[in-house]
Amino acid sequence: MPYRKADYYRGKRVMVTGGLGFIGSNLARVLVDLGADVLLVDSLVAETGANRFNIAEIEERVATRTVDVRDALALERLVDGRDVIFNLAGQVSHLDSMTDPFTDLDINCRAQLSLLEACRRTNPGVKVVFASTRQIYGRPDYLPVDEKHLLHPTDVNGINKMAGEWYHILYNNVYGLRACSLRLTNTYGPRMLVKNNRQTAIGWFMRQILDDEEVQLFGDGSQLRDFTYVDDACDAFLRAGSNDVSNGQVFNVGGSEPISLRDLLDLMIEVAGCGRYRLIPFPEEKKAIDIGSVYADYAKIERALGWRPETDLKEGLERSLEFYRANREHYWGELAGAR
Amino acid sequence: MPYRKADYYRGKRVMVTGGLGFIGSNLARVLVDLGADVLLVDSLVAETGANRFNIAEIEERVATRTVDVRDALALERLVDGRDVIFNLAGQVSHLDSMTDPFTDLDINCRAQLSLLEACRRTNPGVKVVFASTRQIYGRPDYLPVDEKHLLHPTDVNGINKMAGEWYHILYNNVYGLRACSLRLTNTYGPRMLVKNNRQTAIGWFMRQILDDEEVQLFGDGSQLRDFTYVDDACDAFLRAGSNDVSNGQVFNVGGSEPISLRDLLDLMIEVAGCGRYRLIPFPEEKKAIDIGSVYADYAKIERALGWRPETDLKEGLERSLEFYRANREHYWGELAGAR
Repeated sequence: MPYRKADYYRGKRVMVTGGLGFIGSNLARVLVDLGADVLLVDSLVAETGANRFNIAEIEERVATRTVDVRDALALERLVDGRDVIFNLAGQVSHLDSMTDPFTDLDINCRAQLSLLEACRRTNPGVKVVFASTRQIYGRPDYLPVDEKHLLHPTDVNGINKMAGEWYHILYNNVYGLRACSLRLTNTYGPRMLVKNNRQTAIGWFMRQILDDEEVQLFGDGSQLRDFTYVDDACDAFLRAGSNDVSNGQVFNVGGSEPISLRDLLDLMIEVAGCGRYRLIPFPEEKKAIDIGSVYADYAKIERALGWRPETDLKEGLERSLEFYRANREHYWGELAGAR
Repeated sequence: MPYRKADYYRGKRVMVTGGLGFIGSNLARVLVDLGADVLLVDSLVAETGANRFNIAEIEERVATRTVDVRDALALERLVDGRDVIFNLAGQVSHLDSMTDPFTDLDINCRAQLSLLEACRRTNPGVKVVFASTRQIYGRPDYLPVDEKHLLHPTDVNGINKMAGEWYHILYNNVYGLRACSLRLTNTYGPRMLVKNNRQTAIGWFMRQILDDEEVQLFGDGSQLRDFTYVDDACDAFLRAGSNDVSNGQVFNVGGSEPISLRDLLDLMIEVAGCGRYRLIPFPEEKKAIDIGSVYADYAKIERALGWRPETDLKEGLERSLEFYRANREHYWGELAGAR
């Protein structure tokens, strides 16, 4: 049962960082419908998932500010007076974090500290929900991965996201800010960045399938993954933001049944009515950093907040592919989403 | 049995960051005796543990460079051609990390990334041993704390040290640098910073005992801690630096038998022949962040590298107190150790 405590967000002053990105913009749409006073903050940097079209239908009903979260002074002014901050701005490319670790550090660590410091000084009663990632677990020691699993991230992005998450928990514990962290698994749906393959595999798969290009899958395709439809992810954010039970907690946001990448592609091709893929051997350098199967245990958030994924994969893929078919020109091509 | 593979370090080009600090300078003394070519790098910033007197007896036998690890360009030149880097430079004050989280971030995260990037580019065959801390475990879930214990640090310093440690492991795993991390518990001995109470409790206790000032101990003094004599800590660094078994690993460096703070003070007073203490109730704000009893399991490093603490607490305290009695003027007073 998706989040229906409509009353909680009605009239609430809500800020979403990364608000023009994939999850941020989907969340903004729900918040607007729930009657929240919504401020979207986004750097609109071309490499991120920001896309003006993502909020085209709600543009008149939200406020937007083009601010980089690294701009501490601007951020300090914006957090003042907010009731809830959904903190989704981040550098999300694993690859970029390895070629330019310092930019990743600035966005995923320094800017997070700035935001929390600003809250502590000007708005200590605020609730902050941080978008973390299951990637911080690294290659799993056991499956499914629960919140007691050790963190041993496998790239700079994972390390910095781990630190960013813990700043939130720390400020909750020490300063009485209310904060929590959602460790997202592979989230998919309308409004992803699919103009290149730098962010998510599933987004790039969808694009190649729709273009009837051959998808190259490494290994035997048996690696298991879990996928969360974006509406379900938004539901988790809304529940976490409105319930003090979440304060100081980290939660896995998992997906429906784990599925092999091969079965995922078969299903995607069935739903799309086009597309093809080929298994190719792991390139040596990719093999070294492959994390094998990984999927999350979401029992903790189910227990605490009543959340569970509601959208099954086939239905989610249908909705996603339909969206990209209808809006292809806004997501395809390197210039898609640029100002 | 302390490290005696003298041959390994003979003629080796070794760099120690934080080389004029407590552990760094003690390590430098051993390295010089083992015949290593020793370069000490230190910012000599007044707030750190750097103290020129720490290397007075070996000054002629080591090279020193006054360089801040935040100076990426200078560091890049210095790492070139080193065989082993003992990476001990860090911001270690928990309190400072909370009042100025950004400086802590620069030193404990950004500078560590700079050092590793410099190694990757100019000296990818180097071995790096990182000085981490058991503080990253936070308040223990169980005792003794082993390396499988979850990391849930309780201050900004702990979070940043956690990230700094993982950069080292990552660069080992991905780029083939050889790196490992030692999670130090309470290390004590000659050459600590005791000019104020900002760094370690045990150093400050020793100073107060020697000054016959009343030590104030919070709570009932029953909190258990483990203490490593600095020679033993140096032995762990030397073993880790000379053995590829350590590559990619994190190790607890524990102490001899855990002891309550009350028993520690009793022992210290017995050894010193002076001093006194008083139990006082926990101030509310301290109680909130008290981590209770904590001590480490060092079975992993014993198994892998044959390390175990060799100096019992009484003997270590005798040597330490003797050192500070003889060299008081170099360690007491806010100006001690300044350039």
